[in-house]
Amino acid sequence: MITVVIIGFGNVGQHLFRAFRKSKEVKVLQVCSPSLEEGYKGKTQFIKKLSEVTMADIYLFAVSDDLISKLSHDLPVEHKLVVHTSGTVSMEALNGKNRKGVFYPLQSFSTDAKIDFKKLPICVEAENPEDSDLLTKLSKAISKKVVVMSSQDRKRMHMAAVWVNNFSNHMYHLASDYLTEHDLDFDLLKPLILETAKKIQILNPKDAQTGPAKRKDKNTIAAHLAMLEDPKEKEIYKLLTESIQKKFNQNQ
Amino acid sequence: MITVVIIGFGNVGQHLFRAFRKSKEVKVLQVCSPSLEEGYKGKTQFIKKLSEVTMADIYLFAVSDDLISKLSHDLPVEHKLVVHTSGTVSMEALNGKNRKGVFYPLQSFSTDAKIDFKKLPICVEAENPEDSDLLTKLSKAISKKVVVMSSQDRKRMHMAAVWVNNFSNHMYHLASDYLTEHDLDFDLLKPLILETAKKIQILNPKDAQTGPAKRKDKNTIAAHLAMLEDPKEKEIYKLLTESIQKKFNQNQ
Repeated sequence: MITVVIIGFGNVGQHLFRAFRKSKEVKVLQVCSPSLEEGYKGKTQFIKKLSEVTMADIYLFAVSDDLISKLSHDLPVEHKLVVHTSGTVSMEALNGKNRKGVFYPLQSFSTDAKIDFKKLPICVEAENPEDSDLLTKLSKAISKKVVVMSSQDRKRMHMAAVWVNNFSNHMYHLASDYLTEHDLDFDLLKPLILETAKKIQILNPKDAQTGPAKRKDKNTIAAHLAMLEDPKEKEIYKLLTESIQKKFNQNQ
Repeated sequence: MITVVIIGFGNVGQHLFRAFRKSKEVKVLQVCSPSLEEGYKGKTQFIKKLSEVTMADIYLFAVSDDLISKLSHDLPVEHKLVVHTSGTVSMEALNGKNRKGVFYPLQSFSTDAKIDFKKLPICVEAENPEDSDLLTKLSKAISKKVVVMSSQDRKRMHMAAVWVNNFSNHMYHLASDYLTEHDLDFDLLKPLILETAKKIQILNPKDAQTGPAKRKDKNTIAAHLAMLEDPKEKEIYKLLTESIQKKFNQNQ
């Protein structure tokens, strides 16, 4: 049984709390956040103040990147394993009075969406092999896919996640707003959106690409640019079209 | 029973042929393409020349946009229903000796990927209500979602499809190439890609958005820009970040 204290109860903290509660190998002793109502939820104590944390195997910070350093300094324990859940912050940002580690779930957490942790990769890092093993064990309690990864590689992975998640979602956002402006139904695109993501599970992105940019269909590209009123959106369309074409001019 | 002749046997033609063959309400009498081997596949005759087409209810052009006008002129039939499958070409591009229509499946067709036509919206258009009904019937033989849509709206829908499909897929492509360059495994992002598309089936894109751009996390944005070596990719990252932030500055 691994005992855990979760510090921070935003999207990441809440999703991890729910996932750990389902596992028999993990016990969340406490969740700490100034916004919480004090009391118990099942066997987990909800506390407001960091000064009230109890002894545990792992202290897991699910807080904003810029709070990691300060809060890990304020944590009133020593020589324990303390980890954060950030994709971008280096392990070294954690305070040196404890053993450092990272527990980064490669996923985008929205409050309202349920997450299937089993298929979700978790990137772990620690200063020593024992802690790396313990974090791997913690990860395996909720996920089938665990990877030991350096801070440097985790930062790269996080940036790539921004491209495939935040930027793709923004493509949906631009399309949705455009269709709504013209009284057209964004729902019609939902099967295509799902198909686009499913296709990439089996094809590589280059083989999956289709459309006017790849085909160098100048008429359609010009017509689309003329249809876009916002200069910024025009610029994005142009730049992405050029960028697609660059990929297909390479290595031929 | 609706009888159909398919002209063109690229991605769209092949996928439609396979979908129609499974339906009892549609009979594909012929498929015509210069690249075909002449003969029979089941009850369908494969021919090379447009001059050999037989009588049918619907002539369906699944050819490049720039061939629609010429080939519909060369088609040796009159007063029949002739349709194309393009998202961008106006119905009016078809030759006037026949009744015009459009049959546009809102999907991206890659040769290797199987398509579930049942969930795929088909946008139809015709000059008269009877033909519109016939195209609706043809669509319903393979799909549950049929929409009658003007050429103008179809063009808009097609452009939105370019955003959600071509441009999202390019985000995957850029991420994949970046990770490969750094010996990291793109497969780790596949669950996130699928989750991003699934989330949009229930949340609107604005509520689904997360990440450094939305959070205005300047440190992470600066770190990512520093990690990108290609000036064009830097520019895309910057532009998309600004564009996300613009959406969240609006209507607050």
